[in-house]
Amino acid sequence: MSQSPDVHICETGPRDGLQNLAVFVPTAAKFALIDAIAAAGVAEIDAGSFVPAKVVPQFADVEQVMAHALKLRGVTVGALVPNLKGAERALAAGVQAIYFVISASETHNKANVRRTVAEQIEGFKAVRAGIDAGPAAGRPHLMGAVSTAFGCSLEGRISGAAVCRVARAYAEAGADEIGLADTVGYATPPLIKSIVEAVRAEVGREMPLRLHLHDTLGMGLANAVAGLEVDIRRFDAAVSGLGGCPFAPGARGNIVTEDLVFMLEEMGLSTGIDLPKLMETRAILRQHVPAEHLTGHLHEAGIPAALWRAA
Amino acid sequence: MSQSPDVHICETGPRDGLQNLAVFVPTAAKFALIDAIAAAGVAEIDAGSFVPAKVVPQFADVEQVMAHALKLRGVTVGALVPNLKGAERALAAGVQAIYFVISASETHNKANVRRTVAEQIEGFKAVRAGIDAGPAAGRPHLMGAVSTAFGCSLEGRISGAAVCRVARAYAEAGADEIGLADTVGYATPPLIKSIVEAVRAEVGREMPLRLHLHDTLGMGLANAVAGLEVDIRRFDAAVSGLGGCPFAPGARGNIVTEDLVFMLEEMGLSTGIDLPKLMETRAILRQHVPAEHLTGHLHEAGIPAALWRAA
Repeated sequence: MSQSPDVHICETGPRDGLQNLAVFVPTAAKFALIDAIAAAGVAEIDAGSFVPAKVVPQFADVEQVMAHALKLRGVTVGALVPNLKGAERALAAGVQAIYFVISASETHNKANVRRTVAEQIEGFKAVRAGIDAGPAAGRPHLMGAVSTAFGCSLEGRISGAAVCRVARAYAEAGADEIGLADTVGYATPPLIKSIVEAVRAEVGREMPLRLHLHDTLGMGLANAVAGLEVDIRRFDAAVSGLGGCPFAPGARGNIVTEDLVFMLEEMGLSTGIDLPKLMETRAILRQHVPAEHLTGHLHEAGIPAALWRAA
Repeated sequence: MSQSPDVHICETGPRDGLQNLAVFVPTAAKFALIDAIAAAGVAEIDAGSFVPAKVVPQFADVEQVMAHALKLRGVTVGALVPNLKGAERALAAGVQAIYFVISASETHNKANVRRTVAEQIEGFKAVRAGIDAGPAAGRPHLMGAVSTAFGCSLEGRISGAAVCRVARAYAEAGADEIGLADTVGYATPPLIKSIVEAVRAEVGREMPLRLHLHDTLGMGLANAVAGLEVDIRRFDAAVSGLGGCPFAPGARGNIVTEDLVFMLEEMGLSTGIDLPKLMETRAILRQHVPAEHLTGHLHEAGIPAALWRAA
């Protein structure tokens, strides 16, 4: 592709989608999933977490998965890290993007990383310093994600001030991008707009912003459209709507990449993604992931032949 | 309720939700469903179709269902009619609202009512005349619905001109309201806005407009938000997302009333509906409707206790 697509999509299924599964997805299946995602033209893949295997057994093979993914051409391969130790492993693996997490909700942050928000901000500074201490060539893109930015199943509503506090800390500490994550899926379209604008007022409009949306309450795509309306052009999503949150029983996963791609393309916004190819990921997932975790309207209804352009 | 809610919702589950089911829902269960919907505070119920029982066996009991529903206080009871014969039965039953259907798609209109669009427009004029020939007191509200207004699984994309042709015919023939129906669920948020504005330019802004949305491709609530953004305040929806279309295999049904109510209330728009009470309809449906037809994010995730106000 010589031209950038209108909307940048990061496929987070291999990381956010698999992290809460009770079953271990075999390493070879993770390879196949990542290969299929990249083959469909997805520009960025959140391919795993550098967390201790005893905390999240799913990522016991993260070094192997990253080594495999990093052989692919034309795709940025990233990983989530919760602390400096994780970042050091990610740097050693040679990842191209690092995603750090701090929750706007103090309670969620404690539950998620066992630190206060203030301590986690210090952790982010250490990661920035760790990256900057290495060679300038091949330095990974560093995104700071604000988890529970639109609500928390433990604290309920989250103030814009709590989100802006974390966003400002990220900006001041040198994040390359800030992610606003609706971790539990409580956002509404007007809330998306008001938080995005509040964060921009706090950190300046030059800072790239990304939305990470879950579809717990059915508003996932509506929230994505709200993001588009305030000029967000970077989104996380997961094939087959993989994902969920241990603190939101019954919750759906991430917004479905296939459904997001179809909607964007129908709206005249290019994604650079080959939708029929992306839908081939379903067959891989079906072999390893329990059926109740696999959602997606396009998978149920099929790509409407009466609308969709010929491939 | 002394004050009008911000958004008017018509529950179409008993009509659009049941019409394509292979199973006959017993008359007593229809009574129970309608009672539960009314008890939750829904202002309008689309309670059935006056069509020949040999065409849609589900509505063989429509006279009984209407007689039951019309005993309820504080709710408008309406019915779909495809022709003058149906309207005469509806008038005899004493319904408070009549919904007529004409497709923007010529092919869909033929498939649906076995007439051309021009013939169906003449049919609407006959219904208007039939109503006006009766006593002025208790005259039902007459809505003209434009089916396939945002796309058709037979014809694909539908032009704004085709929608405006039907809308103008309705307005000129004396419709009290025009419904714009995304019969197969192909609309996108920008398309909702452009069709609504085109219809307003055609028939004037005084004509009340209603949106009828399906969630085939996951964009149902996003499309409802698009409607809100162009000042639509009247929506159809179905409890548990009942519905589907014989011409869209695998398609989901109507937007889910429970999810719509939750979203609107979270956005600060009142609906007049008691959500926990509305969710009690699920237990009634579960006894008679196959599980694969029962959807809804709120039903899966539960009403988030951390957000929702105390009852």
